[in-house]
Amino acid sequence: MTTQTYTLEEQLALIQRGTQEILSEEDLIAKLKLNRPLRIKAGFDPTAPDLHLGHTVLINKLKHFQDLGHEIYFLIGDYTAKIGDPSGKNSTRPPLTDEQIKANATTYAEQVFKILDKEKTRVVFNSEWFNDMSAADMIQLASQQTVSRMLERDDFSKRYASQTPISIHEFLYPLVQGYDSIALKADVELGGTDQTFNLLMGRTLQGRYGQESQVCITVPILEGLDGVNKMSKSLNNYVAIHDAPGTMYQKLLSMPDTLIRRYFEFLSFKPMEEIEVLMAEMEGGRNPQEIKRILAEELIERFHDADAAANAHKSAGNVLADGELPVDLPEVTLTLEDGQESLFITQILNQAGLTKNSAAAKDMLKRNAVKVDGEEVNAGFSLTSGQTVVIQAGKKAYAKVTVG
Amino acid sequence: MTTQTYTLEEQLALIQRGTQEILSEEDLIAKLKLNRPLRIKAGFDPTAPDLHLGHTVLINKLKHFQDLGHEIYFLIGDYTAKIGDPSGKNSTRPPLTDEQIKANATTYAEQVFKILDKEKTRVVFNSEWFNDMSAADMIQLASQQTVSRMLERDDFSKRYASQTPISIHEFLYPLVQGYDSIALKADVELGGTDQTFNLLMGRTLQGRYGQESQVCITVPILEGLDGVNKMSKSLNNYVAIHDAPGTMYQKLLSMPDTLIRRYFEFLSFKPMEEIEVLMAEMEGGRNPQEIKRILAEELIERFHDADAAANAHKSAGNVLADGELPVDLPEVTLTLEDGQESLFITQILNQAGLTKNSAAAKDMLKRNAVKVDGEEVNAGFSLTSGQTVVIQAGKKAYAKVTVG
Repeated sequence: MTTQTYTLEEQLALIQRGTQEILSEEDLIAKLKLNRPLRIKAGFDPTAPDLHLGHTVLINKLKHFQDLGHEIYFLIGDYTAKIGDPSGKNSTRPPLTDEQIKANATTYAEQVFKILDKEKTRVVFNSEWFNDMSAADMIQLASQQTVSRMLERDDFSKRYASQTPISIHEFLYPLVQGYDSIALKADVELGGTDQTFNLLMGRTLQGRYGQESQVCITVPILEGLDGVNKMSKSLNNYVAIHDAPGTMYQKLLSMPDTLIRRYFEFLSFKPMEEIEVLMAEMEGGRNPQEIKRILAEELIERFHDADAAANAHKSAGNVLADGELPVDLPEVTLTLEDGQESLFITQILNQAGLTKNSAAAKDMLKRNAVKVDGEEVNAGFSLTSGQTVVIQAGKKAYAKVTVG
Repeated sequence: MTTQTYTLEEQLALIQRGTQEILSEEDLIAKLKLNRPLRIKAGFDPTAPDLHLGHTVLINKLKHFQDLGHEIYFLIGDYTAKIGDPSGKNSTRPPLTDEQIKANATTYAEQVFKILDKEKTRVVFNSEWFNDMSAADMIQLASQQTVSRMLERDDFSKRYASQTPISIHEFLYPLVQGYDSIALKADVELGGTDQTFNLLMGRTLQGRYGQESQVCITVPILEGLDGVNKMSKSLNNYVAIHDAPGTMYQKLLSMPDTLIRRYFEFLSFKPMEEIEVLMAEMEGGRNPQEIKRILAEELIERFHDADAAANAHKSAGNVLADGELPVDLPEVTLTLEDGQESLFITQILNQAGLTKNSAAAKDMLKRNAVKVDGEEVNAGFSLTSGQTVVIQAGKKAYAKVTVG
């Protein structure tokens, strides 16, 4: 697949999808017009190899470029990882050994190649060029940027203002990252919005070292399943690439409806036109759980396989703990007959399809196996118009029931 | 000569003479009590090899340590000189070639060994340890100090406040200088007062690298011959080590009397007791020009030889340009007889010893060879009580004449 397969407009549309910022779009267009495979760089820190969907937003964007015929450089920042935080102040950055880095890189690759084409992706380590760099070269590199420019970086300016110490080597790390762009002759660098400063550093340094400056493209930080905070392990609002199909299914179906559009835009490989159709259907009344299921199945197929995708909804049930609700809870609305003021629980169990017949319903009530909103009820329990409850009959039958 | 020759008190007295600051005196005493030759470091920038007396204040202090039996490390900072100012903003710091540095170092040594004992002085180049330093080592070094600490350095804080750009590599240079102390395992580092920050950097870094911290000793910046500004070539208020004996003599005798004590303290190797005697004599009315001549002769002997010192006052006259005044201008006070209101120029020339007799005086006036304050005068010129003028009779006879 070469770039010639796509028009400039088609390329631009795919690249722009779900990006936060392109610096600058004009430069990007000029680069695309060169009509040669562009060198696309994205850097990864080999310290946290367990990827979640939040990380894949960036990898998906690499996939877009790869599909368009460009060259992907998947850069492992092993050089600084081996140095760690030499000031010893940041205990979360212990120096890594070569073995740890190699192991992490392998784990990384395994996950990333579920999205990217392994054959077309170049995995590079920045120690390749930095191991040979002398202290004099580093001084030279450090001369290319000013202290005040560096203090403009958001986290540095905050720390400086609050008198939280910044070690001088921390000023060197953005320069190291920027130098990677020079070593790779990057045409484009991708990163999260929190990387904007560092990406621009590469853009500036390339100019100083006589190279054409890279285009910087940032992708947004994906919200976690809570719909509010950034997806992260520590907040336990994440879907890991390593998650089992049932877990993935269950987690994705639990997300708030407000996230559906964003998750599709950033995580699905369906064309935006198809996604717009789904969104329109949802607006028109289609059950959001069904829409989520479509996404869940696409992602499970990507990270596992088609079989796992087809069966995930079953295994999702199996992972429920006692009393825990399934995420793909059927929703049922029951209507009162004219003149009827309430529905008794046996009627509800039957009409909602939670039991086969009235006898089975009565039997279950006798065994104290029916819960309404988590509380055991007996045969005398009834619902009136307007009420919505979650009803559990036995171990496996659930429904969210509304009396219309 | 070993340290055992001197008592602790004798050593301290000599070391303290003319120093600005000792950080700390307590540590210095502890080091001296080790009763071994201490490793004394002083760093020199090989970019400006022409030394003047201002530079020798520091070298004289090294001489004191050398006389006390300690080991002098005369450090040439060739590493950073070879890098220059890579940001290209400081055009006064072009990178030097190995050849230039070697030539400058030789010129340096020539001058310095007029003060220090060549056999007992170790000339070292910091490229010895820095050429092998990797970029990773430099990052490690940079991690040992914080941005805010570095911004406390006087020139950095001023530039930061006034938004004058500071390149990041400028933060690395004090660390490089500090690392030199580690490489040399320096016990003491000497520098000008403008070097205090950098000397303390070495003291701190040694501690971080597990060494005992060096003592930092600063010497004052010597005023130039104008008695006000720092001695410097650009202000043309200097005495260069390379200056010819006559020039040296002439320049030193031109200094204001207020400088005499400081110049003796910092530049003479006479014991302070002897100097105090001279100062007392001057207070008691001895002509300050005579005291200056003593210092001039000591310095000319040091930088040239005893013969040159003895004859410098003659050659001083020879270097005068037409109409230029000699610096050791004789001062003469003439008194009016009772009832006398003025003195005619023939009388003045005779009485001041500028001519042999009245005939010679008249002859000179006829030849228009007599100038008063630079203006030709004739036989009708006279002075009244209270006037002071400089009178020149012919090419070589001068006097500053006051009518009492």
